[in-house]
Amino acid sequence: MLVNGQLNDSISALDRGLAYGDGVFRTLSVKRGVPFNWQRHYLKLRHDCEALQITCPSAELLLSELQSLCTQQQDSVAKIIITRGIGQRGYAPSAGQVATRILSVSLATQFNPEFYSSGISAHVCRLKLGHQPLLAGIKHLNRLENVLAASECAELDTPEGLIEDEDGLVISGTRSNLFWLSDSTLYTPDLKQCGVAGVQRDRVIDWANEQDMPCKIVSIRMPQLLDADEIFLVNSVIGLWPIRKLPGYNRTIHPVSWQIQKWLNDENH
Amino acid sequence: MLVNGQLNDSISALDRGLAYGDGVFRTLSVKRGVPFNWQRHYLKLRHDCEALQITCPSAELLLSELQSLCTQQQDSVAKIIITRGIGQRGYAPSAGQVATRILSVSLATQFNPEFYSSGISAHVCRLKLGHQPLLAGIKHLNRLENVLAASECAELDTPEGLIEDEDGLVISGTRSNLFWLSDSTLYTPDLKQCGVAGVQRDRVIDWANEQDMPCKIVSIRMPQLLDADEIFLVNSVIGLWPIRKLPGYNRTIHPVSWQIQKWLNDENH
Repeated sequence: MLVNGQLNDSISALDRGLAYGDGVFRTLSVKRGVPFNWQRHYLKLRHDCEALQITCPSAELLLSELQSLCTQQQDSVAKIIITRGIGQRGYAPSAGQVATRILSVSLATQFNPEFYSSGISAHVCRLKLGHQPLLAGIKHLNRLENVLAASECAELDTPEGLIEDEDGLVISGTRSNLFWLSDSTLYTPDLKQCGVAGVQRDRVIDWANEQDMPCKIVSIRMPQLLDADEIFLVNSVIGLWPIRKLPGYNRTIHPVSWQIQKWLNDENH
Repeated sequence: MLVNGQLNDSISALDRGLAYGDGVFRTLSVKRGVPFNWQRHYLKLRHDCEALQITCPSAELLLSELQSLCTQQQDSVAKIIITRGIGQRGYAPSAGQVATRILSVSLATQFNPEFYSSGISAHVCRLKLGHQPLLAGIKHLNRLENVLAASECAELDTPEGLIEDEDGLVISGTRSNLFWLSDSTLYTPDLKQCGVAGVQRDRVIDWANEQDMPCKIVSIRMPQLLDADEIFLVNSVIGLWPIRKLPGYNRTIHPVSWQIQKWLNDENH
């Protein structure tokens, strides 16, 4: 791990990232030592920092630090946390705070190959996401809702779960973005009130554009979702998992999902 | 500072308190070296830990560690953070995680004495609190909403601000609980959907019980609040600040607020 460029596995206990979750993060795949889709991840990181008025370190600095951690040519997962920095008591940030950057690399998790080929059986979480338009879309460090939703999945030993918002709209997985296909149109939920807008979500939208397939950002409730031809979840670490089973939904064939899955694995996209 | 009982000002960069805000905290006054209302604060801390299924350290351990930090007989402010502990990547907690405890003591802030005698002019925040019944009332580490609201107050140089929720109900201050008096009845907002239930809020309710004054937990919107006879904000560090001015509200006399203010300062209550 590198903390502010130094080999270190600790941070100040006065960091606002700990005190208030006052920071943002990204998790990305490293393939044969090279961060995958680096440019996209950096742009998201900078966007999220700007939304919280945190000064984002430069792309060059972060990439060079990341590369110094990725000397092994193994597939791994990198995580970048940027916090607002060390602060005194009190919610309001002080002027001129220096952001803390924390970079770590760990071995890639090996997921069950059937999650990719046959798809997953997904839980529908009891937890409902609250609305906060000022923070929606941002991958910030306030993630207790995800912790609670992921705990539900872990208890049931399901690999992922779908989360609805307080109005009953389906928003995402616990750590992934949601898409579905109906009548040759791709759909993904609107994230203006809650949820995280991931890099992989943007890439799927790019895939649709490349194919001249319409991709619409909409609101959907569970009963409508169950009418979809295909449903899948994406994120930068898992790639794409088709959904095989939900209460009231059963699909064994996922032709479009498999096509997108393959496309996402290509480093040129 | 003490981290897990050791003199230390750093924590693991893999702590879930940093990664996800997966933990709780309390801030309390220390008067002449003695933590004020310790028993109440500990019960809240334990309640909040239980709500997140974090194992709370014993009251004896925390109090003895706190006392070892409070050797100076000065008035100070203590902060206790309990996180779920160190974790690997992934939102779901692992079994058997050992909580991290972080105790710190800092000099008490000296507030403007007029905030107590004449009251404060309060900002009405643009930020609206989202609803999350599973986390409402808990003083957890996901505090970005408070950071954004407090930033608004800091920009305007106002000592506190009122926050409404997404439905337009007035919930609290940015770091304090709200009360108002109308026709000899005390009122405070319902916190079932959002907000933090502080120790000082419980003490004000106890005061009302002692006086046989009704204290009702209700929902209120800003226009109704402006009709109140008195409005005040409380927390464990500031004590009680009457509200002197809000857009559409102006009061120079706060007789009941002053009475409660005095009562709260008494260590026997």
